[in-house]
Amino acid sequence: MALSKKPYKGTRDFLPPDKRAQDYLFEKMHQSAQLFGFEHYDGPLLEEVELYKAKSGEELINDQIYSFVDRGKRFVAIRPEMTPTLARMVSRVHREIPKPIRWYSIPNLFRYEKPQRGRLREHWQFNCDIFGAPGRTGEVEIIQLLISFLENFGANESHFEVLINDRTIVDSIFSSLTPDKETIYKLYKLVDKSKKIPDEVLLKELKEIGLEEESQKGFKRYLELSSFEDLFKFLQELNLGEAAENFKDFYQVIEGQNIIKYLNYDPTIVRGLDYYTGIVFEVFDKHPDNRRAISGGGAYANLLQIFNEPALAGVGFGLGDVTLQDFLQSHNLMPDCSKAINDIFISYQVPEGYRDLTQVASALRSAGKKTVFSLETLKFKKVFSQAEKSGANFVLLYGDQEKNDKCVIIKNLASKEQETIELSNTEEIIKFLNK
Amino acid sequence: MALSKKPYKGTRDFLPPDKRAQDYLFEKMHQSAQLFGFEHYDGPLLEEVELYKAKSGEELINDQIYSFVDRGKRFVAIRPEMTPTLARMVSRVHREIPKPIRWYSIPNLFRYEKPQRGRLREHWQFNCDIFGAPGRTGEVEIIQLLISFLENFGANESHFEVLINDRTIVDSIFSSLTPDKETIYKLYKLVDKSKKIPDEVLLKELKEIGLEEESQKGFKRYLELSSFEDLFKFLQELNLGEAAENFKDFYQVIEGQNIIKYLNYDPTIVRGLDYYTGIVFEVFDKHPDNRRAISGGGAYANLLQIFNEPALAGVGFGLGDVTLQDFLQSHNLMPDCSKAINDIFISYQVPEGYRDLTQVASALRSAGKKTVFSLETLKFKKVFSQAEKSGANFVLLYGDQEKNDKCVIIKNLASKEQETIELSNTEEIIKFLNK
Repeated sequence: MALSKKPYKGTRDFLPPDKRAQDYLFEKMHQSAQLFGFEHYDGPLLEEVELYKAKSGEELINDQIYSFVDRGKRFVAIRPEMTPTLARMVSRVHREIPKPIRWYSIPNLFRYEKPQRGRLREHWQFNCDIFGAPGRTGEVEIIQLLISFLENFGANESHFEVLINDRTIVDSIFSSLTPDKETIYKLYKLVDKSKKIPDEVLLKELKEIGLEEESQKGFKRYLELSSFEDLFKFLQELNLGEAAENFKDFYQVIEGQNIIKYLNYDPTIVRGLDYYTGIVFEVFDKHPDNRRAISGGGAYANLLQIFNEPALAGVGFGLGDVTLQDFLQSHNLMPDCSKAINDIFISYQVPEGYRDLTQVASALRSAGKKTVFSLETLKFKKVFSQAEKSGANFVLLYGDQEKNDKCVIIKNLASKEQETIELSNTEEIIKFLNK
Repeated sequence: MALSKKPYKGTRDFLPPDKRAQDYLFEKMHQSAQLFGFEHYDGPLLEEVELYKAKSGEELINDQIYSFVDRGKRFVAIRPEMTPTLARMVSRVHREIPKPIRWYSIPNLFRYEKPQRGRLREHWQFNCDIFGAPGRTGEVEIIQLLISFLENFGANESHFEVLINDRTIVDSIFSSLTPDKETIYKLYKLVDKSKKIPDEVLLKELKEIGLEEESQKGFKRYLELSSFEDLFKFLQELNLGEAAENFKDFYQVIEGQNIIKYLNYDPTIVRGLDYYTGIVFEVFDKHPDNRRAISGGGAYANLLQIFNEPALAGVGFGLGDVTLQDFLQSHNLMPDCSKAINDIFISYQVPEGYRDLTQVASALRSAGKKTVFSLETLKFKKVFSQAEKSGANFVLLYGDQEKNDKCVIIKNLASKEQETIELSNTEEIIKFLNK
């Protein structure tokens, strides 16, 4: 029986047009991160499961992780996220390197889940993190970078918004509603899904949690907050003004900046049961057909503790390639990647061309020209369709006449301009290509 | 107990200096492949084990592969090599796309083996392949590309050589020594290790194989061949001239080319029990401390058969990042990657700088300048050591005087040249950076 030609469930084959599209995303990631002085890092694809257990909930370990026991009896996992690896690496070197540490990476990650739109088993994620930045400057820079990255694709405030909240504030509000830790934990879970369930269900679940009636009202009022001003007023009423200090600092810095137009306060953003301890945020697609998060992140204080290292404030975001591409496509911001782009297609109409043109090809490549060399003699009438398929901007022709005259014809495929140039005069050929 | 900070056995953490070094290798891979008109592709990290079983020997499946059963009862593996994935992908599309197909990839691969110099459990491999090229033109182009890639690092014929052979020839010689397929198989294994074992052992093993005395001599004579001329003479003696047709074609094409200086005939190059059917080759480091293969490849005819597709001639090579870096380091061809390179470090000596300079930073980034923004007020005497650490070529200063005058000082750290420019005149600032 013949083997299947399909890729493994939930993964993708990247044929050249697909890979060009992905490389387009990756290049913008490198570019944007480097414009902010972030340095590229990477870690191993496999890590011991212990690492994820220490950082994440058991839920992730049991259900969503690709794990197995290796022959050395190590219990290992294919990385489902980059942050634990990052924490491990930073804990190795943070004492010796200058702060703030600005690092980025574009790892492929695996999650064991039912493939669906925007969520695959293998995807790539753009990760940017800052460690050891004073005050709220790290949070500001990370959000600046994230916005600038999306703007580099031509996206603007009509395409996306950044929804933001602060876990310190949420903690203090929930603590004012109930003294019970377990109940607070349940409220977090409820906030997380509150947008997706109808009001009756929310109320029913609130009752089940066992929150007092007054506190239920408080929780519902919290969920209705819709601006920074609302929030700050609400906190004053509850005598929780102090909890807002960090968030106010942050707000004051960004108030005068261009990025403020993207930011909206949203009480439902809490980033689940994750390791965040301060400001948290999500980038939301504004397209009505694609209303969902394309990136999320936040500030965390205790990521290095599992390695017995002192607390080092950090903040970062992750952004997946699948959701990003969906976002860009929804808004017509993806370029056409279906065809390769090359500088020149070298053809010959006499078999001697295969030998005679080797030096020209080699010289063009040395000059940085992407050169597709025909591997067979091509009839004149076939040359142009082949050149077009190769994605070349220029074509070189070499027939009987040219062979006798020891020259070549170079033609610009767009302008149709052409020139006959001596075969040995590669400088002139390159000059014509640069015109 | 604190968690280990070490990466998983046989894998590497890429801290920014390590990653810069690897990215330097990767960039040359992209560049070189694209100069030859090769298109980038990629496939999934996981494939079903069936795929590797169909293509490779059982040995690989049992001992060296990372495999496990997923929750859907699929028996999957972390890819140990790229060729089976490539074959699967080409078999999906080869009917619809123009020939020759020129594809390259830089996947990470996993092999379960004892980590040692040059061999790790996770490594990256530069893979280039051509399908559907007429005659020996694919072989020639693949070897041209491989040599040109190494030359792009500054390597030349004093650093490496390309050892070459042809499986068709080896097959016909071995068939002339014995009619028994099993014995031929054993001879292949013996050739493969012949360089690593002393003569007595070789003789002993030859006897154990059960080869007749006359054939033993023939085998030993074969192993002593050391040039193309030798080989062609030897074949004539054995009346096997026909088997050399392909190889002669190949040799005639490259004879007039620059790359001939790198090529040497070597009878011990057979590429093991792999799927090659024609010309095979290995790039060997000439450094006495590092005598080993840094790349290998060859021509194969039947790679698509496992998918019930018609034969499509292909040729390709693989080259690992670890061996490549060892090679370059042995010959002092690796640049210093220890420090980041940035355009400008923005510092301020008054706290207002954090706000006042945001627009300048943003404008510089829009102009493509890698801009490291200080996240704290820096005393003048600390500025230069910080700027130096950031890898910047320029530094911006903003103190009391500048704040009052609404201007900034920009200083070239190498030439010490400096200029005072209006804060709002970002054009002038960029001009100074471009000088």
